[in-house]
Amino acid sequence: MKFDVMTLFPDMINQACSHSIVSRGIENAIISVNTWNPRDYTKDKHKKVDDTPFGGGAGMVLMCQPYFDCFDAIEKKEDTDVILLSPQGETFNQNMSDTLARKKHIILICGHYEGFDERIKEYTNAREVSIGDFVLTGGELPAMCIIDSVSRNIDGFLGKIDSAHFDSFYDGLLEHPQYTKPREYNGMPVPDVLLGGNHAEIAKWRRKQQMIVTYKKRRDLFDKFAKNCKNKEDLKLLNEVLKEFKV
Amino acid sequence: MKFDVMTLFPDMINQACSHSIVSRGIENAIISVNTWNPRDYTKDKHKKVDDTPFGGGAGMVLMCQPYFDCFDAIEKKEDTDVILLSPQGETFNQNMSDTLARKKHIILICGHYEGFDERIKEYTNAREVSIGDFVLTGGELPAMCIIDSVSRNIDGFLGKIDSAHFDSFYDGLLEHPQYTKPREYNGMPVPDVLLGGNHAEIAKWRRKQQMIVTYKKRRDLFDKFAKNCKNKEDLKLLNEVLKEFKV
Repeated sequence: MKFDVMTLFPDMINQACSHSIVSRGIENAIISVNTWNPRDYTKDKHKKVDDTPFGGGAGMVLMCQPYFDCFDAIEKKEDTDVILLSPQGETFNQNMSDTLARKKHIILICGHYEGFDERIKEYTNAREVSIGDFVLTGGELPAMCIIDSVSRNIDGFLGKIDSAHFDSFYDGLLEHPQYTKPREYNGMPVPDVLLGGNHAEIAKWRRKQQMIVTYKKRRDLFDKFAKNCKNKEDLKLLNEVLKEFKV
Repeated sequence: MKFDVMTLFPDMINQACSHSIVSRGIENAIISVNTWNPRDYTKDKHKKVDDTPFGGGAGMVLMCQPYFDCFDAIEKKEDTDVILLSPQGETFNQNMSDTLARKKHIILICGHYEGFDERIKEYTNAREVSIGDFVLTGGELPAMCIIDSVSRNIDGFLGKIDSAHFDSFYDGLLEHPQYTKPREYNGMPVPDVLLGGNHAEIAKWRRKQQMIVTYKKRRDLFDKFAKNCKNKEDLKLLNEVLKEFKV
């Protein structure tokens, strides 16, 4: 997977990519991340990339010329996906991440401080994507979130230490609680069932806990799961949970 | 505002904070960001911070001792907010950001690769927060998103170059399209109304565009806005938009 990131702050992206699992993916040549700075493409003698908005108002607006030319300089493939990070975009989620992980090339366009001239969105034919209903100073952190999340879903990216299939959201429920040594710490014990070695019981307890955690923390996800639940074992546990919460 | 970040990858946080508006906030002493590495607090001779999960399964689980002791080392204030980044948490949004911006001290607890021992959540009495319905390798990027977003909402943080009040989500609608020089680029013109200098017309066009953009891109936000809309001018524009889309 090749990521090309258009950003006025390439160091932010490059430094973030030098850590952790993303840097390992780059070392193992499973992903590559390149940065492109629109400021390097401006024809303005002062290297300007933004100007005041037509119609007045606070803030600056990123200009067409440097962004058009920078975008043109990036080699596209047949299935290149172009994503422009913006609070106005559709909300990124695990499904979108899974779909993007099957692509070969993603261009991520970051703004910073200010908005894009609307024509940049038209020219690049970009899909506008937001990571959530909050405003950030730039698209760099969202771009990094997408690179991290999408990379995790690429075959061969995660080693044995981890597995995307046990993550939250994988089947619509949040993860069950986890415990590790010691059995008791600071007067807080580990639930007995996890210490017993009965694997069927443990699996059942964990599945039920997933439902309970999701019910308590994310009723929206729980309702969707309950509505679509067809698995016989799951339905049995679901009834127990609903009874406990007297739904 | 003081941010204390518990992380196994302090460099990731420190480097990200050395850029852009966050670094300026630190220079101007409006915010401070300190990192705390639980690995520095482990009593294990191999500096271990995680172990295998009770009950079996893939992945490793972050251990109580280094996280309890690291947490204890951070000085708390009366109104300290403790946030643990986790896909199982409530979803971060602009409202939560506004509320957090009125606090004086926020502790952000990041995991990495793996889950937390459930007792860490109990001991720290942390509010679990997620930035969205997708899984990341660690809590560092979400922590940075929260620091950036919350900082933007602190009085005095943003200069004249920018204003949180014109951002998306500020009043439930997405932002209107923006344009800057030149008037035409690559055959793409700026809408006439923005060039005319009639400020009342421009304001009306922008407000209507906000509704149109939100209708097209985020029906959920639009429906909520339409339901609660009481402003007379807004209601008139809203009717025009609904008529155009034949709702």
